[in-house]
Order: sequence, then structure tokens, then C-alpha cells
Amino acid sequence: MRRAGWQVRVLEAAPQAGGRCLTLRAGDTVREAGGPAQPVPWPVAPHLYLNPGPARIPHHHRGILGYCKALGVPLEVLVNENRAALVAAPGGAVPLRRLQADLRGLVTEWAVKGLGAGGLAMPVSEEDLVRLKGALRYWGGLDADLRYRGNSRAGWAEPPGAGLAPPVPNLPLDPRALMRPEVWMAASFAEGIDYQATMLQPVGGMDRIAMAFARVLGDALVTGAEVLSLRRVEGGARVAWRGADGAVREEVAPRVLVTLPAPVLARLDTDFPADRKAALASLRYAHACKLGFYAARRFWEEDAAIYGGISWTSGDATQVWYPSHGLHGEGGVLVGAYIFDGPAAERFEAAAPEARAAAMAADGEALHPGYAQAVSAPVSVAWGRMPRALGAWAEWTRAQRGLEYPLLRAPEGPYVFAGEHLSWLTGWQEGAVLSAWSALADLQA
Amino acid sequence: MRRAGWQVRVLEAAPQAGGRCLTLRAGDTVREAGGPAQPVPWPVAPHLYLNPGPARIPHHHRGILGYCKALGVPLEVLVNENRAALVAAPGGAVPLRRLQADLRGLVTEWAVKGLGAGGLAMPVSEEDLVRLKGALRYWGGLDADLRYRGNSRAGWAEPPGAGLAPPVPNLPLDPRALMRPEVWMAASFAEGIDYQATMLQPVGGMDRIAMAFARVLGDALVTGAEVLSLRRVEGGARVAWRGADGAVREEVAPRVLVTLPAPVLARLDTDFPADRKAALASLRYAHACKLGFYAARRFWEEDAAIYGGISWTSGDATQVWYPSHGLHGEGGVLVGAYIFDGPAAERFEAAAPEARAAAMAADGEALHPGYAQAVSAPVSVAWGRMPRALGAWAEWTRAQRGLEYPLLRAPEGPYVFAGEHLSWLTGWQEGAVLSAWSALADLQA
Repeated sequence: MRRAGWQVRVLEAAPQAGGRCLTLRAGDTVREAGGPAQPVPWPVAPHLYLNPGPARIPHHHRGILGYCKALGVPLEVLVNENRAALVAAPGGAVPLRRLQADLRGLVTEWAVKGLGAGGLAMPVSEEDLVRLKGALRYWGGLDADLRYRGNSRAGWAEPPGAGLAPPVPNLPLDPRALMRPEVWMAASFAEGIDYQATMLQPVGGMDRIAMAFARVLGDALVTGAEVLSLRRVEGGARVAWRGADGAVREEVAPRVLVTLPAPVLARLDTDFPADRKAALASLRYAHACKLGFYAARRFWEEDAAIYGGISWTSGDATQVWYPSHGLHGEGGVLVGAYIFDGPAAERFEAAAPEARAAAMAADGEALHPGYAQAVSAPVSVAWGRMPRALGAWAEWTRAQRGLEYPLLRAPEGPYVFAGEHLSWLTGWQEGAVLSAWSALADLQA
Repeated sequence: MRRAGWQVRVLEAAPQAGGRCLTLRAGDTVREAGGPAQPVPWPVAPHLYLNPGPARIPHHHRGILGYCKALGVPLEVLVNENRAALVAAPGGAVPLRRLQADLRGLVTEWAVKGLGAGGLAMPVSEEDLVRLKGALRYWGGLDADLRYRGNSRAGWAEPPGAGLAPPVPNLPLDPRALMRPEVWMAASFAEGIDYQATMLQPVGGMDRIAMAFARVLGDALVTGAEVLSLRRVEGGARVAWRGADGAVREEVAPRVLVTLPAPVLARLDTDFPADRKAALASLRYAHACKLGFYAARRFWEEDAAIYGGISWTSGDATQVWYPSHGLHGEGGVLVGAYIFDGPAAERFEAAAPEARAAAMAADGEALHPGYAQAVSAPVSVAWGRMPRALGAWAEWTRAQRGLEYPLLRAPEGPYVFAGEHLSWLTGWQEGAVLSAWSALADLQA
């Protein structure tokens, strides 16, 4: 905006820039509405942090990555899918590699049968069909007779050593063990366009991006500045805001770029027309939650050779994330729960921090026996209770995309709007960046 | 060995420890037998290096990772499969994501047909079958009628933005485009047990491991010490070796742990029995080759959003690797060719460095138009021509595993043997570690 000739002031209610782009580390405190303050009780070390909001950057999110490059934010690889990660199961957690290999093998075996049943939509020669079956054999890890009987992709029953005996691969699991929804979810989530390798993270925490922006903004950024009301006036809009010193100021700006999350903006004292207010109030936000645990011993690395990635519980915790950084280091911070939305998130959100931690520690036991004893110092964030967010990200319905989305993204008099919710990439920083660029085009117009 | 009470001396012919665990950076020179010296002409920077030998550590190689931890070698994630990486194709390179999504979709569509044709070996209820088809739909990214018609897993024809129009996923490729072997290889290699995420690398180059070993070995390590002959004598074996000063020494040791690669050991002046000599000479080594290019501009990141991972050419270069480190940094070193073995490796090995570089630059053009102009400063290593290796790794035949393998790994008088070739994990440092531990057990016995 400055490059386009605007004189800019950023009013940020929080003590620091970033909003949901937040990193928690020693010295920080989480303050949910109606909850006790949660000071972060972890040791001070660069690798000991939790990103309660966005924690991954897909490689094709060129906008946010472009800012990382331009602002000098160092990046490193984040492991999203790790074949050593675990999926909770009734008989004990199973490494993802075993589920992936078995599913791929079985599906391919069925596909070979489907081909025989005239499944191929296109005309192919007999020779092509032979080549195709050879390719399928390789793809699925099938035996020479095109049956799946397990192979080393599923891991080893007897790992390769330096003795006389050859290694022995795992046998296939009972196919019934594959029939559970969390198995198919765990086996496919990293196929999603925003979850595919390579995924990235800023070295030291996601808020390095916000800090880099704050650095270049300099005096233009006013933190601790809570906007109280917006009114259209002659020459623009009047913004009333309370500063960090408690004093209330009123200022008129020719244009106001409004980036508050919809649930917060819906509650703000504004003179927006009724249809906009109704649209803001009707936009549902996901109630995502995250919980961080400290572990003095990196037991996931030492005991299970897990370096980064995500395990799947069958409890409310949903996902457990292992750090992709600080490998072999002193202690680590685990994401002990990442709950996207739904009843599990509601339960988590309603619970007190201690109750959340106890439940999540119990869920982790299904992945790592002894987990509840090995983790400590919980810190949790339920985005639905974070005062300046009141939700994690917008969840548009198909119908709302036709009506409320165009309405909310349209400028109105002195007001221009941006945020992840005003994009097709909700829940991602990239959506906020693209929306900001779109808003800048609106401003220029 | 020292902990077990042995007094140890390590005779290392090279100027530094590590053998094939080698890293090339500014100041180094590659000297192949019968080839010109290749000084490494890259700028001096921690991220500008090539690992011509081992370059990846699978997360389940606990031996070598244990040494990394014990010796304080910092590790970072290496991206092996990157869905943004490219596969060369007649009409232009295709991102791996698109091939992966289309293959998975097609195979799953065939599998659904195979299920209908009575493909399921186990008895399932009608209800289970409905659930299974739902799971298959999700797994393969199929439409409601269980057909694959493309989806966002394959990437975007119109990416999501912040405008009014919704994003548009890629349509499926012509299935004929999927029928090429390099496509199936590219789409399945990371399923292999030693290629699955998470893969790791030492920060700064693989030789950090060798350097860490050298540090703890201290005076026990004698570099530039070329062993000339081995003879059994009263009280052990006599080792003749030429030191860095050119002087030849003879020493008697009660035990000699021989870790030379088989092709080198086969040529050494020893008093091994004829059957061992014959077995050593008959063990074929892969003639793997690698070539590094310097690029002043990280065009793979800037132009194609590729952060680490491997692209597949259809030429001799086979694989092109992008660095998983130094992201957004100043310049980078690409692996411009990784040729495992076979005729392509023979051609590469026979060629002069300049001819290799020209051919590999041309192969890269099929991935990145303008590649040949964007890369420079080639450095190449054909392991078959490296004097102290004469090959990359052992390639046992099934028959040799029954006869020659037990013979070569067995101790003999004062001689004990170790190396990657004496394991079931040839071509991996882990195999060498496991073999060394096995040899230590032999020594103790």
C-alpha cells in the first residue's frame, strides 16, 4: 500500500502483530475469554514453541512465500506425512507405512480384477495391457501373480541386518483393520493439494513472518490499539480506538481496510448496512483447537524413530504432531491435539485447560504407551474462545459463496475488506495475502 | 571397539575419513582414475555442497542415526518426494502431483469395478461394501458415481484466489500419458521402505558424520595411509602401508578389521585363500554416478515452487535433485544427475567431465526450459572410476547371497571383515554400521 502511495496506519488490538499467525514460547500467556490465564511453562530454547494457528506453508502458496523471501524469513522443511507416524487402532497403534502399503496393495489387486472385468475405458492393445499390469504390479507392490501378500513397503517383521538371515517383510494386516475411517483419512490426507510435500515452516515459529512485517512497518504499526467503532463521515470514515495507554482516540481516514475476522467484526459498533451485518453474523467459523505438551525426552524419536509428521488418534485429540525441527535436541514441544472442528472441538473448547490436558494425554496413550507420564506443561488454545478471533477460519457454505461472499468482499464507501475469509483459501495465510492484494486493487480502483 | 578394550588404529588411504561418505565443496578436488582433476568451482557457503555418495538417511536407520545423536551431528529433513517435482514427458514436463492424482484416481476407479466383479476375497456385508466404496471414493478422489474426473489433488487449472470465481482443478491427463515406465517409477519410488518420509540429512553435508567420527578417533585415525599388503604372521597379521610422507611401514596387529570395498580388496596384495579372492572379484558393484551443478539463481524455487525433492528425466541423467536446505538462499547446488547403474551409468563413466556436463544439462532442459543456461560449474563423480571405491555399492545376486556372502563375511584367522557389502542393506551407511557391529561381535568371539 505504501508503494502504491498510501499513507498507512495499522491498528492492531493485540500487543503484537500477526493475529492468528501466532507462536507461543516461554514468557507468553494464553488468555481465552472466560478462562484462566495460561502462562507458557516451557524452557527457553529456539526449538521450543507451538504455532497454535497456522503451522504449515504449502510450497505453492506463492504469496506468503514471496513475503518470506522478500522479508528474509528463513524457512525449513516441515514433515506433514511421515510413514513412521502412528494410527491408533484397537489392537495397538499401527505405523502409517503399514496401512499405506496394505491399502495400496489391496486397491491395486482389486484394480487388476477390474481391468479383467473390462474396466479400462480406452481401447488398448494386448501388449499395452501386459505392460499396464506390470506397472500395476510395481505400483501396488504385488507378487508375480498380481496378488498382494505384503512387502517391505509395509516395514519389516525382521529388519535387514548384517547376519546370515535375510530380512522378512511384514505380512498384510487383516483387511478388516483397514476398514476404519481414520485409517483412510490418515492414508489420504497428504494427497490434498494443500497438504502435499513439500510443506514449509519459518525457522523458529510462524510468527517470524508477522515479526518481519512489523519490522518493515515500523511506526505505521500501532499495537494494543483496539478499534471501538467505525462511522462513515465526510471525507472517509471515523475510527474510534483505544490505545495501549487506555486513552480513546478518534481519527478520520479516507479509506479503512477492515481485516477483522467476521465474528469479531459482526460484534463491532459499525454503521454497516443491515445485509452486511447479517452476512457477517451468519458466516460460521471452524472451532479449531490445539494443545501443546512439553516433553523433556524426545521419546517419539528415541523409541519410535518418528521425526516430524502427524499421528492419528481415535479420540478427541484427532492429530498429534511431532516437531520437524530441533531433531535429536534437548526436549521438544508436541502438538498433543489438533482438532479441526465439530463435537470434539466443542468439548475441548468447553473444558478447562487441566481437563483438556488430561483428556489429550489419555488419547496419546493409544499411540505411545507411557505418553501421559512423558508429557507435561500443557498449553491449549480453543480459537472459538480467543477474544480477537472468535473462531479459527471461515467455513462458507456453497449457498453463501453465491450471495454472502460477494457481498462481504465488496468495498463499501470508505470501507475495503480483507482476510482469509474473503478468499477461496480460507484457513490459510495465503488466503489472507490474496485477499489483501485484491483489496489493494479495490483501493486503487 | 575401544570401549570393548581394543587398542585401535584406523588406516585411511584418503586425506580424510569417510570413504564414500563424502561431501564436495569449494576447495575440494575430484580425482577419478584416468580423468582430469576436477576442482570444485562453487562459492564458499555452508549450503553449497554435493554429497556424491550417500545423501539420505531413512528415519528407521537407527544405527547411523544413533551415531549422529551420540556424536552431535545436527540433522535436518530431506525432501525425497515432492509433488511439485517434475517428470519429463513428450509434451513437456508434468508435475508429479498430477501424475500421482491421476494414477491413484484411475487405479481406484478400476478397483471399484474389481470389487463389483467379486474381487473382495473376504466375506463382507452389504453395509460394509457401501462403507468400503465410500472409503475408496475418498482414497482415489473419485466423484459421487465413483469415477475419476480429476480433482484438486492434481493441482489447479485456475488456482484459488480472492476473486468471485471459484478455483478450477486440473482435468485428468490422457491416460496414455501415464503408460510410460518413468511415470510409474516416479509415482512409486517413495513407497519403498528406504525412501519413505521422513528422510534426513546432516546439516552442511553428509561428511559431517565422518568428521564427527574422526574427531572422537583423534590420534587413532591415520589419514593418507594406503595399505599395500596383508600377511598372516605369528601373533596376527602384518600390514604394510605407505604413509602420507611416502614412507612404507610394516606393523603386526593381532587382528585386522578389513573394510575396503570388495573391488579394491580384490586387487590388494593379500594372502587370502583362493575362494575368498574369487568371491571378492565376482561381487559386482553398481556403477552409480552423480553430477553437481551450481546455479546462481534458485530457478527451481522461483519459477516452479520446487523446494527439495527429485525430478525424473527420460534421459541418462535419470534424476535431478533439488536442495532441501538453503531455501530462498543465495544460489544453490543441484544434483544434475543421479544415475544408479546400467548403460546410462556406463556412458557417463566413460565420458570426460565436460561431455558429461553437456549431456546432463541437455537432459535438464526437458524439465526446466533454459536449464542449460541457468546451471554452471559442473562437478561429477563416477564411482566406478574412484580409485578407493571402484564402484558405488555391492549388488549381490540371489545365488551369491547363499554362497559368497557367508564366505566374505566370515572372519578368517586374524582378519575380520565389515562394510556395506557385508549386510542386507547394501548402498546404505546403515549397512556399514550393522556390518561393523557384527564384526565387533566376531572380534569379541
